[in-house]
Amino acid sequence: MTEAEAKKPQESLQDRLAQVVELLQRHRLVEDLTHRQEGPHQDRVEGLVHRQNLAELQRKLDDLHSADVAYILEALPLEDRLAIWQLVKADRDGDILLEVSDAVRETLLADMEDHEILAAAKEMDADELADLASELPRDVVHELMETLDAQQRERVRSALSYEEEQVGALMDFEMVTIREDVSLEVVLRYLRRLKELPGHTDKLFVVDYDGVLKGVLSIKRLLVNDPEKQVAEVMASDPVSFHPDEDAYDAAQAFERYDLISAPVVDKNGKLIGRLTIDEMVDLIREESESEVLNMAGLREEEDIFASVWKSVRNRWAWLAVNLVTAFMASRVIGLFEGSIEKLVALAALMPIVAGIGGNSGNQTITMIVRAMALDQVSTGNTSRLIRKELGVALINGLVWGGVIGIVAYGLYDSWSLGVVMTAAMTLNLLLAALMGVLIPMTLMRIGRDPAMGASVMITAVTDSGGFFIFLGLASLFLL
Amino acid sequence: MTEAEAKKPQESLQDRLAQVVELLQRHRLVEDLTHRQEGPHQDRVEGLVHRQNLAELQRKLDDLHSADVAYILEALPLEDRLAIWQLVKADRDGDILLEVSDAVRETLLADMEDHEILAAAKEMDADELADLASELPRDVVHELMETLDAQQRERVRSALSYEEEQVGALMDFEMVTIREDVSLEVVLRYLRRLKELPGHTDKLFVVDYDGVLKGVLSIKRLLVNDPEKQVAEVMASDPVSFHPDEDAYDAAQAFERYDLISAPVVDKNGKLIGRLTIDEMVDLIREESESEVLNMAGLREEEDIFASVWKSVRNRWAWLAVNLVTAFMASRVIGLFEGSIEKLVALAALMPIVAGIGGNSGNQTITMIVRAMALDQVSTGNTSRLIRKELGVALINGLVWGGVIGIVAYGLYDSWSLGVVMTAAMTLNLLLAALMGVLIPMTLMRIGRDPAMGASVMITAVTDSGGFFIFLGLASLFLL
Repeated sequence: MTEAEAKKPQESLQDRLAQVVELLQRHRLVEDLTHRQEGPHQDRVEGLVHRQNLAELQRKLDDLHSADVAYILEALPLEDRLAIWQLVKADRDGDILLEVSDAVRETLLADMEDHEILAAAKEMDADELADLASELPRDVVHELMETLDAQQRERVRSALSYEEEQVGALMDFEMVTIREDVSLEVVLRYLRRLKELPGHTDKLFVVDYDGVLKGVLSIKRLLVNDPEKQVAEVMASDPVSFHPDEDAYDAAQAFERYDLISAPVVDKNGKLIGRLTIDEMVDLIREESESEVLNMAGLREEEDIFASVWKSVRNRWAWLAVNLVTAFMASRVIGLFEGSIEKLVALAALMPIVAGIGGNSGNQTITMIVRAMALDQVSTGNTSRLIRKELGVALINGLVWGGVIGIVAYGLYDSWSLGVVMTAAMTLNLLLAALMGVLIPMTLMRIGRDPAMGASVMITAVTDSGGFFIFLGLASLFLL
Repeated sequence: MTEAEAKKPQESLQDRLAQVVELLQRHRLVEDLTHRQEGPHQDRVEGLVHRQNLAELQRKLDDLHSADVAYILEALPLEDRLAIWQLVKADRDGDILLEVSDAVRETLLADMEDHEILAAAKEMDADELADLASELPRDVVHELMETLDAQQRERVRSALSYEEEQVGALMDFEMVTIREDVSLEVVLRYLRRLKELPGHTDKLFVVDYDGVLKGVLSIKRLLVNDPEKQVAEVMASDPVSFHPDEDAYDAAQAFERYDLISAPVVDKNGKLIGRLTIDEMVDLIREESESEVLNMAGLREEEDIFASVWKSVRNRWAWLAVNLVTAFMASRVIGLFEGSIEKLVALAALMPIVAGIGGNSGNQTITMIVRAMALDQVSTGNTSRLIRKELGVALINGLVWGGVIGIVAYGLYDSWSLGVVMTAAMTLNLLLAALMGVLIPMTLMRIGRDPAMGASVMITAVTDSGGFFIFLGLASLFLL
């Protein structure tokens, strides 16, 4: 993990992507011509390699920061992505693999030979290897582990022993440690002997002879204090630290809250075993909010936008199937009232309004609650207060908008009783939506599931079936 | 902006919130008793101040980091929030005001006297003042500006002159600048003379006599290089820098991409005018993804979960009104086919299935696209490819799930032609959902709007009206 002294992006990433795409398209054109002249079995790539365009593309890629190459790979459809991936210098493979999203990484790894993967992986640190290990071919992992020294192997094993959402899986091992009984002058000389400091080193870790964390010395304090002073005088002796089995997202929130750049990870005996850095935390914050958005829509995980149709179908089918069942249930609710609809066909036209507005309003409530839960602002203690508030909002919306639509219904079908039923049904369905909008995510959380999981599908199921039942039920009672 | 050497949170924030709530409730109990005994006009707060519980609560709050107090204030309903706010020591008011969310800050400021606000604001830096200025009473801002020196006033003015989403509005002015023709030794001595370094100082800014940025010297390099070396030899001369009128979200992406901690902001002549830091960027990343989630559900802005019912109604009414109109249109589509429904009432029961699955599937597509747009992976160049992919997914889902529901419809109503119409309608509506799921956010982006804006309401509108039309239309043509 090196902190990039990246060049100023004089052109935006979008521009650079456009340039790469254009160069690629020019090749394709040439390629197509060659192809047609020399028959269908002409080796496409071979035919390209010597062209001038390709050299230009190569130069362009070499100039780009690894993170930018990763961005370009993510933004390209599979075929183009692999063409570009072939052009990337082998010694950058590792960096770029670490930067791309999981879905895209899978496509790149599938295109690599074992020996190429091995070469790329050898450049990586223990924590980076651990991140990737689950996605690499088993043989490659095995061979890799053989090449590591005992300490490195131990670190990879330890990082692998934690769940993805635990601190232990995100920590790295690039700590600079010092003793508390030396002067700052000695620390400064020690640092100068290191050729380089790890990225995100904003503090040094003070440990005793057993490796137990005694405190942290921030670089800022090191710089402004008298070099004659002892580390123990200047260090902060009770720093924010984490345990490897803590929830990583909680750690990310602590980073955000306390504006941290790095923090020590200690085991239960207080021994320093690694550190967390802000860059991993930023990635985590982004991933969390992404998965929240995706989960609400019933998408299982990050889907590469250029994923194959088949893969996308698999990503989406589960919640669609749930939705099919719920839609079928709503349909059976209507089936119960077919007699009423036959007598008064206006009911068929009006019922989707009740269901639709309920669904929209319920989605607003559930989005609010899921949001507040992600920020830890909702506890079981304030459930009833939240429900009361949401019911209040629903009551006002129901009376106002239900009233409007009731008047419209009266105007259309010239029946004031139909209008009243419409208003009443809207209000009741909005109240139901509000109640379930709070209770669904609360219940999911209480049984230990992600509160955003398919929230949208579930609330819509309730407001559809509920809306049809309330409206058709009221109509059957009072209109027929 | 001080980087907190925050204490290790030995208890979780949730625990601390629970403790505060409990102490508060104990007071309320005592308060209620006093209240009942001494009549309704007893001053509630006076009656509490001397109680022992209160002292404990006060101690608890004093021990907490400002960010933690802010969290607790956000998680409490209005009444409790203001009770706690009264207990916070005046000299921390400013820090805490800067930490809380906009919606909560508004409630706190409304509870403060002008002179209290003034005192809190006087502790702030120019960039922090500028952040808050729009929310403070006009008189207070005026008085504040009077108390500032010329440079500070100029900085506040300059920060205020940028839009909220521009780099200029997020930069601060706490740069440490050095010259390129001095040795590292001199730099180290200079730093030692400063009593303190600003938070997030991972690099020093190298400027010439006109204040033009010549490069940056990272602290890491300062520490590992020979003190005899000149700054010019060690500095990076072409660092990532930003202009004040650049889009702040682009800057945040650059911070994430290049793992930056701080970066210089320069005007069009290359003069250093401020800096950006990772903490502001993390806040921005979180806010962006939050507003994406909220926008999709048709919520206008961050809504404090304990906001008054009335405020919540206002936040939500706009998209509900849009939804009402679209639901009414869908209802009129059904109205067109009332004759068909009268003849075959099964249509009324089956039509919501077609509309509902279309809505769910469209929501999945639109979520994917909005997501990819936020990550800059979608350009106008790949629209047609994306549409083709989504149409492919829709076709498979339509045939599979449409087939299933077609068989079920056949089973229920014993009409194979009804089953075929059902399957065909599902497939067509899913294709429509896929097409619009791509085109709606694309169009919003092209006309310069937020692509997430009410995306969910719009796609549902299309799939409802479209679904009813397709299904009832096909049924009228082939079944009656």
